[in-house]
Amino acid sequence: MTAPSLDAQPIDLAALQSRVDTALHDFLDAKTRSAKDQCLPLDVSAALRDFLTAGGKRLRPLLCVLGWHAVGGQDDDTAVVRTAAALEMFHAFCLIHDDIMDNSATRRGRPTVHRSIAVRHGHDRLGTSAAILIGDMALAWSDELLHSAGHPPHRLAGLRRVIDVMRQEVIYGQYLDLMTPLGPITDHEAALQVIRFKTAKYTVERPLHCGAILADADPDLTAALSRYALPLGEAFQLRDDLLGVYGRPDDTGKPVLDDLREGKQTVLLALAAQRANTAQRKLLDTLVGTADLDLDGAARIRAVLDTTGAHATVEDMIATRYAQALTALDAVPYPKPAAAALRHLAARAVERTS
Amino acid sequence: MTAPSLDAQPIDLAALQSRVDTALHDFLDAKTRSAKDQCLPLDVSAALRDFLTAGGKRLRPLLCVLGWHAVGGQDDDTAVVRTAAALEMFHAFCLIHDDIMDNSATRRGRPTVHRSIAVRHGHDRLGTSAAILIGDMALAWSDELLHSAGHPPHRLAGLRRVIDVMRQEVIYGQYLDLMTPLGPITDHEAALQVIRFKTAKYTVERPLHCGAILADADPDLTAALSRYALPLGEAFQLRDDLLGVYGRPDDTGKPVLDDLREGKQTVLLALAAQRANTAQRKLLDTLVGTADLDLDGAARIRAVLDTTGAHATVEDMIATRYAQALTALDAVPYPKPAAAALRHLAARAVERTS
Repeated sequence: MTAPSLDAQPIDLAALQSRVDTALHDFLDAKTRSAKDQCLPLDVSAALRDFLTAGGKRLRPLLCVLGWHAVGGQDDDTAVVRTAAALEMFHAFCLIHDDIMDNSATRRGRPTVHRSIAVRHGHDRLGTSAAILIGDMALAWSDELLHSAGHPPHRLAGLRRVIDVMRQEVIYGQYLDLMTPLGPITDHEAALQVIRFKTAKYTVERPLHCGAILADADPDLTAALSRYALPLGEAFQLRDDLLGVYGRPDDTGKPVLDDLREGKQTVLLALAAQRANTAQRKLLDTLVGTADLDLDGAARIRAVLDTTGAHATVEDMIATRYAQALTALDAVPYPKPAAAALRHLAARAVERTS
Repeated sequence: MTAPSLDAQPIDLAALQSRVDTALHDFLDAKTRSAKDQCLPLDVSAALRDFLTAGGKRLRPLLCVLGWHAVGGQDDDTAVVRTAAALEMFHAFCLIHDDIMDNSATRRGRPTVHRSIAVRHGHDRLGTSAAILIGDMALAWSDELLHSAGHPPHRLAGLRRVIDVMRQEVIYGQYLDLMTPLGPITDHEAALQVIRFKTAKYTVERPLHCGAILADADPDLTAALSRYALPLGEAFQLRDDLLGVYGRPDDTGKPVLDDLREGKQTVLLALAAQRANTAQRKLLDTLVGTADLDLDGAARIRAVLDTTGAHATVEDMIATRYAQALTALDAVPYPKPAAAALRHLAARAVERTS
């Protein structure tokens, strides 16, 4: 393992995020101009612009740039920031298709892409079809962002390998999630497998690896980053699952009933179903996954999650994984500013309310 | 423009097609094995295998390899064949998503991916969601086929530029198609714009360019290939539109009523609507795009297409474009076997019954 050189400047995450956003907007502005020139529809770039400006934590792009810093990347980071922007564009693809599959009406406090088009045209199927295509375009454009970033060939080849693996993992993760039998499952290991593919690798590990490969990371250092990334990614998703049931809609930007109505298969629900007595199990079977669940029903589910201790166990699982991530971070002499920023992002991912 | 060297061996298109198929099957077999090893769902690679073995003309992969031959590509064509396979995998992505958007029940004489899963699980939305993901995976895997083909970096970079442009064009083409107002349009130029993006560039021009770039084609030769490709691509789609209305389902593998029920915006219908008298226009407005159109209704539409001369005009347009493509082919001293194969494929694309 190489010991990367230290530099002392702290990393300004807010400034970094705003550079990623600028890269995205400049790219989409250029797409809008060239669509105009060719008499092509402007809705596609406009929809992606709206989607990307509506919010988002930019966790993946930030982790990408931090992966580069962690391995000792220095000097010009323009191509790294553009790669980070490509990851955010890829994430837009995932979310737009995910919202179609989950039939979600809102995301980040605004109508989802398919709903917004369906409402504008008064036509549900048209909204779905257009959103499939807009998602497809986000995927195509995320590649274009990558390929036009100016990476030297050996780095682009390494980066493409990480990206190709990442895409396969997240699509398999979604597929696993989709095919999990409906109704509360009691197998929380199955729910954890979904989390690993859909979130831990996709949200934390692969973005770090993308940045690391752009600073020519060796395999030992890549593996060390995974030891930080995977527990943190699991903790991030477990927090997400708790927020889906206990979060305040004003903070999360999505209705608190969605996850329960959809019957989302979480570790939280699996643990509760495992431990439930007959009456509690019957309540879960009856209420979870019903489209017309109301606030009172949600409160009754939450009571089961609390009294079975499932809620507390998930909090414990988050704390354990968070500690593992920090231990893994401390085990490697990363450049101090990178380590500090990774520590900060870990806290933000695990302690967030939105 | 370079004058490529001549070689005398004829190109065996059937053998080429079978090598493309082998590349696809080997790739998917490897994906199935690694999914087994990781306890990931086997349905994704299985669905793509079924889809790809159900038929298809393999026009795009053949054109890709012929583009390489046309520019004088010689010796080892393994990487070119793998690139050709990547184009076919990309095409699977397009068709799987297209079938969702068109709500098509059959393709190549078999149930579409979304219908087949919907029927197996007794759940329409699940079928749609799974097919969105299987399409997404086909796109991701088409890239993996490209990136693992063993291209030297400068060729891969050129190839990626063509692929990135091609993906944007076909997605914009689909979007244009989707957003064309319902009911018969009279603007056949608008229908031609859809054809140019959705078919002429995507099906003929870009596959040829992909192959050409792998033999280091110069811009003049690339432009010369476009002069063959674009009229041929338009002729191909115009033939497709005729087959959609006049074809025999036993040949085409899809119900002859689908295009008319869906109200697909074709040059054929636009010309008929332009020229229709009041009664004919009323008949088109009433019958085209109605989901319960029957064989008798279709026959009445066909009568309007015939008596307005729209059918004959489209046949003329096909003939003109076919002649343009052949003239463009003759204008360049391509290696004889490549020219012969391109001439053969042009005839096959334009004179086909399926």
